[in-house]
Amino acid sequence: MSRGPESLADRVLAGDVRAAARLIRLVDDADPSAAAAMRRLYPHAGRAIVIGLTGSPGAGKSTLADQLVAYFRGQGKTVGVLAVDPTSPFSGGAILGDRIRMNRHATDPGVFIRSLATRGALGGLSRSTAQGVTIMDALGRDVILVETVGVGQDEVEVMRLADTTIVVVVPGMGDDVQAIKAGILEIAQVFVVNKADREGANRTAAELEQMLTLTPPPPGAWKPPILLAEAHRGKGIAEIVDAVFRHRAHLEARGRMGVLRRERARREFLDLLRDRLLDDAIARLGGEAGVERIVGRLAERETDPYSAVESVVGGRS
Amino acid sequence: MSRGPESLADRVLAGDVRAAARLIRLVDDADPSAAAAMRRLYPHAGRAIVIGLTGSPGAGKSTLADQLVAYFRGQGKTVGVLAVDPTSPFSGGAILGDRIRMNRHATDPGVFIRSLATRGALGGLSRSTAQGVTIMDALGRDVILVETVGVGQDEVEVMRLADTTIVVVVPGMGDDVQAIKAGILEIAQVFVVNKADREGANRTAAELEQMLTLTPPPPGAWKPPILLAEAHRGKGIAEIVDAVFRHRAHLEARGRMGVLRRERARREFLDLLRDRLLDDAIARLGGEAGVERIVGRLAERETDPYSAVESVVGGRS
Repeated sequence: MSRGPESLADRVLAGDVRAAARLIRLVDDADPSAAAAMRRLYPHAGRAIVIGLTGSPGAGKSTLADQLVAYFRGQGKTVGVLAVDPTSPFSGGAILGDRIRMNRHATDPGVFIRSLATRGALGGLSRSTAQGVTIMDALGRDVILVETVGVGQDEVEVMRLADTTIVVVVPGMGDDVQAIKAGILEIAQVFVVNKADREGANRTAAELEQMLTLTPPPPGAWKPPILLAEAHRGKGIAEIVDAVFRHRAHLEARGRMGVLRRERARREFLDLLRDRLLDDAIARLGGEAGVERIVGRLAERETDPYSAVESVVGGRS
Repeated sequence: MSRGPESLADRVLAGDVRAAARLIRLVDDADPSAAAAMRRLYPHAGRAIVIGLTGSPGAGKSTLADQLVAYFRGQGKTVGVLAVDPTSPFSGGAILGDRIRMNRHATDPGVFIRSLATRGALGGLSRSTAQGVTIMDALGRDVILVETVGVGQDEVEVMRLADTTIVVVVPGMGDDVQAIKAGILEIAQVFVVNKADREGANRTAAELEQMLTLTPPPPGAWKPPILLAEAHRGKGIAEIVDAVFRHRAHLEARGRMGVLRRERARREFLDLLRDRLLDDAIARLGGEAGVERIVGRLAERETDPYSAVESVVGGRS
């Protein structure tokens, strides 16, 4: 039997974490050989509980992730952690730090931790994260934690993959609460004020509360709870998990899980379609050399991008 | 003569700011009627000096932008300001604030200030910003300031439109310097420690210096200077402008301007091509209804996104 992508998929479905790790790496490298395996895995995914975890650097996300993993393991659930680094070559250290903090789970076969570092193409990050979630799901993980940093549009796209997203803040963020306003509200279902033993925790919680009051949810919609926690001591973890499951019950009671599933399927399909169409068009242009010919004329302003697109699309056989 | 897109372009080329404002709005709304006007403007653009300005909320970017505008006006240059809000409906207030801070230039016809708020599609922000720059350039602005918030991948894409990007930080950022590491280094050509009268300004400058030392530029490459400023008092502005022009001279001496122009033309062309190909493919599927049919099958896991893409691409006439 061949050791190609098909057998890689079979091994993932049989619960082989090394095969899953290899496939996640292929996906992260945008290796075309991953597609056949992904095709085979897709119908077997869709059962895991997917939880997003985001917040500024230093908010204690990794410590909280570590505690959540321990909590779920205590309930007998298997866990996958996808640490997403949407930024640049410069933050390799942060990822390494996360791994070290997760060390106590390193020998537990019920915990599978991987990092994604996809760079370059816009949308590449949410696409490879979606595929990473599918792989962990097909591997049979009960709970998948997707951890990311920051509040940019990329992270918002990544967090849309989660059923429930936890946003972690720390006391005395000041301007950071302003930054949070600017993108995270639409994806936050649970707020955690971590390091709540620090001064100002109640004030930060009150500021968040006030922020939520300014943009009240529509009637019957989920109102994100604001919870205090001290992740490094394990305080507040049960309450966070409880909030996640209450949010899930809320989605199910309102028939929202199906809507979320459709929205995700739609994004994943259109992302893949967009890439494939562009790849095909570039191939028809004669590859890189054909693109460079057009780029040269554009840089000299001998043509404009709109006319160039028209000529490519119109010239299609 | 008709008042359609062609005449809108003619009016922009004649220096009509109201026409430019209208076209920027059309572009921001992704209105297809903008394409004809953009096609006409494109060959007339490419002469302006484009300066990027980014940093965390509260770093004083708008005050600095205001001072830079005053400085360039003092040199007799016309200025365009594009304030880019890459985030969400929730930060409308910030943009309004910026407008108010810019108030002293409101009656100066040599200053043209516009906001972009493009949401939704990934890459939509850098695309509409590129078009906004082209419009201001074709309008005849000598200098274009592109101002944005934060350090996500979206903002990095936006800043790639600038010839020189200024990154503004404030003393005592703490974790924020960590966040900056994670994406901004690759686009920062000038660092400004603003509010330098505050405690810790020298330490923040030293931290930035150390950060740059950790990832030294290749031999002969530009080394970003770290400048202290107090924008609210106009202190340090001349030094910042000087650094911008030194960076520009550096680019020109190394023949890098042409490379930048090609890279930008390439991105703009491929972005437009990608969107156009997807629009055409969706039309061939029968529009929204056709997409929904596929999404329904995906959500039920009756097919997978890879096979669905294959059927769309394979079925092309």
